[in-house]
Amino acid sequence: MSDLAPVLDHLDHSIDQSLERLFHLLRIKSISTDPAFSSDCRKAAEWLVEDLKSIGFEASVRDTTGHPMVVAHHDGEGPHVLFYGHYDVQPVDPLDLWNDDPFTPSVKEIEPGRKAITGRGSADDKGQLMTFVEACRAYKAVHGKMPCRISILFEGEEESGSPSLKPFLEANAEELKADFALVCDTGMWDRETPAVCVGLRGLVGEEITIHAADRDLHSGEFGGAAANPITILARALADMHDENGRVTIPGFYDGVEETPDTILKSWAGLGETAETFLNPIGLAKPSGEKDRSVLELVWARPTAEINGINGGYTGAGFKTVIAAQASAKVSFRLVHKQDPDKIRAAFRAFIEARIPADCSVEFHKHGGSPAFQLDYDMPLVTKAQGALTEEWSKPAVAIAMGGSIPIVGDFRRMLGMESLLVGFGLSDDRIHSPNEKYDLTSFHRGQRSWARILDVLSK
Amino acid sequence: MSDLAPVLDHLDHSIDQSLERLFHLLRIKSISTDPAFSSDCRKAAEWLVEDLKSIGFEASVRDTTGHPMVVAHHDGEGPHVLFYGHYDVQPVDPLDLWNDDPFTPSVKEIEPGRKAITGRGSADDKGQLMTFVEACRAYKAVHGKMPCRISILFEGEEESGSPSLKPFLEANAEELKADFALVCDTGMWDRETPAVCVGLRGLVGEEITIHAADRDLHSGEFGGAAANPITILARALADMHDENGRVTIPGFYDGVEETPDTILKSWAGLGETAETFLNPIGLAKPSGEKDRSVLELVWARPTAEINGINGGYTGAGFKTVIAAQASAKVSFRLVHKQDPDKIRAAFRAFIEARIPADCSVEFHKHGGSPAFQLDYDMPLVTKAQGALTEEWSKPAVAIAMGGSIPIVGDFRRMLGMESLLVGFGLSDDRIHSPNEKYDLTSFHRGQRSWARILDVLSK
Repeated sequence: MSDLAPVLDHLDHSIDQSLERLFHLLRIKSISTDPAFSSDCRKAAEWLVEDLKSIGFEASVRDTTGHPMVVAHHDGEGPHVLFYGHYDVQPVDPLDLWNDDPFTPSVKEIEPGRKAITGRGSADDKGQLMTFVEACRAYKAVHGKMPCRISILFEGEEESGSPSLKPFLEANAEELKADFALVCDTGMWDRETPAVCVGLRGLVGEEITIHAADRDLHSGEFGGAAANPITILARALADMHDENGRVTIPGFYDGVEETPDTILKSWAGLGETAETFLNPIGLAKPSGEKDRSVLELVWARPTAEINGINGGYTGAGFKTVIAAQASAKVSFRLVHKQDPDKIRAAFRAFIEARIPADCSVEFHKHGGSPAFQLDYDMPLVTKAQGALTEEWSKPAVAIAMGGSIPIVGDFRRMLGMESLLVGFGLSDDRIHSPNEKYDLTSFHRGQRSWARILDVLSK
Repeated sequence: MSDLAPVLDHLDHSIDQSLERLFHLLRIKSISTDPAFSSDCRKAAEWLVEDLKSIGFEASVRDTTGHPMVVAHHDGEGPHVLFYGHYDVQPVDPLDLWNDDPFTPSVKEIEPGRKAITGRGSADDKGQLMTFVEACRAYKAVHGKMPCRISILFEGEEESGSPSLKPFLEANAEELKADFALVCDTGMWDRETPAVCVGLRGLVGEEITIHAADRDLHSGEFGGAAANPITILARALADMHDENGRVTIPGFYDGVEETPDTILKSWAGLGETAETFLNPIGLAKPSGEKDRSVLELVWARPTAEINGINGGYTGAGFKTVIAAQASAKVSFRLVHKQDPDKIRAAFRAFIEARIPADCSVEFHKHGGSPAFQLDYDMPLVTKAQGALTEEWSKPAVAIAMGGSIPIVGDFRRMLGMESLLVGFGLSDDRIHSPNEKYDLTSFHRGQRSWARILDVLSK
């Protein structure tokens, strides 16, 4: 009998106890963004420390200027992994849209044969982080040790911008650095298909304000002679894309790689089409670069999006004004090796080249982070895919995500380690919304999945 | 001795009495937009009726659903003219910025050798309309009759959108129709140079809203695949102009005529340059069609201006949203024979052609009026120029105005008559603002100018 089989058995037999532990954690109102719940956040951290100590971890609550971190270590043979999750949750308003109290968790049958754990944080991220803790507990119970050396970092400010995270990583780099990180804050492709997330787009945010005349002008008196900053802005922003949807900013595609055919094929096999992706939001036709699938567009291609625009008179009725200024918020989603600083500089030069000599433009920076991309054939990835495929009896797909998860960039830059993103969330989990839930299957097979992943990583 | 010389003498000798009459009118708080001043508006109308009766006009206050009109008639030989002015005034706030009470007029020396009448309405339009009344009074006093048949229409809602004007013109078309209208609500070129305004740009206003997804989207999740309505809007609006500043909407220039060289030369002689026109508002470089003077651009060329634009997140900070919709307010200044309905239809077709199949656009109409343009060599114009040149000892220039004065379009369409726009306002009169004034010279020589114009028109 392998080391693994009894661990899986143990997990199967202790599902009720593991649910009770999760319920205890879910009852703690650790809403990080609201100062009224500060002591609840600390309570969650303390509960986790006690629970980890009970499994043999050397665990402690670590103070920050905000909510505390939980750090735990357990020795072991083989590779050293750092598991990351967050114990804080989103606010619960509007409370009247919840079917049950958000902090009184239960298991409910949500459709015939499908049970889910209800409550705030069940999916994001308490339920997810406990899948890993339960896998560790089972190893300890069955074998008296961990399959490898394991450190754990639980954050309490993920839902409120993680202000303490970077300083904490910097101050504790030696202690936290491992061979790689395991992050459980993502999802499955669908209820049957497990997924490893190997790509996350980066982000560059810019706000620009174009100034023309030193006051608002009457369009009758000055129209045709005076510069209109809205027109200048519209023209500059319109120039950012060509007729094929490609971004025209010089150097924008530096560092963008073509996705391997095998990966494109595996994505094609997921059955997502322009229609299935866009129809639910009232659209039908992919708007970005031509001749690429929607999944490639959102997972592996960079974008330039206007997130907001404002200028002149925008109230009811009409005002024949030529505005003194106009502004826009623009963001770029980055992939692969695109450099946020270079993209920002190239965008600014691109805009500046389109400003008439007697007008001016101001730029404000709104964050910037590079993309995260693992090699699709990296052993960390292929081993995890293998373990997940075993557990779910369906090939695990290497997916990407359109959005950003800053922690993986921080781990790479500050601790020099890559992150394996595996999670069991589903698209109908309603995270951040009323009636958040986590499928019981996600919780149970998530535990088994981590047991399997730890097993293969230890070999 | 001609008929004219004793009339001019009479005006010179009765300036003090004419000032007293104007002061009486200026003391009446006829603010049309504020219902609190309704009875004041009626009082102004009644005062004017009594004054016109004292000169021998058959005059009456004519009720409307808003503030009343004043209509007056005096028989005479020769052509029949309809004089138009308005007795209502703008609100006076902010009151604390006025040096004197806005409704306690006085004559003040505003710089050495330059006197001005102070008070709300002194220039817009009570002082101006009284220049004509005083010219009539002098004719009557000296000759016992008018130089031609004269009708008068004073409106009390010009500063609040003229809601009653069209119905009134329609209901009284027979009574009000004359050979042409004289309108005194414009200005001189400068303190020395009299002007006849022969062109006013028309206006078409449009509001467009582009709809894409049926909700706001996360730009990480959907960016690159989902249509961005701000990008679509920016591209469509950017397409409206080519690199030479010309409007690219098909058919836009239909009906636009080239301004005669002689007129362009006379405008060049006014000494207005790109610098003198644009530097005061913080600009330096004409932004519209290339190779045309600023005066031609604002007086004789059509425009397409974006007056407002709005979409997505425009608050402080940043939100990585792809908006569900974006909108803009766009207006076109029309010249010569451009057809507002055709321009509106062409614009809508132009925008519609740029909307992806799975998005939609809504249009809202915000007014439309054609341009007003007299032939530069029309006798009405050249005669008036001659009279003004005599009075001011400097050639009167035929100018145009960038903005619109709807009444002249109404007179043309509804009463089939052209309007001669002559006025004595100056650019520093501060109309609509605190400390409105009217130069004493404008008031005095304005009276003399109308006496001369009536004289030449009667011949």
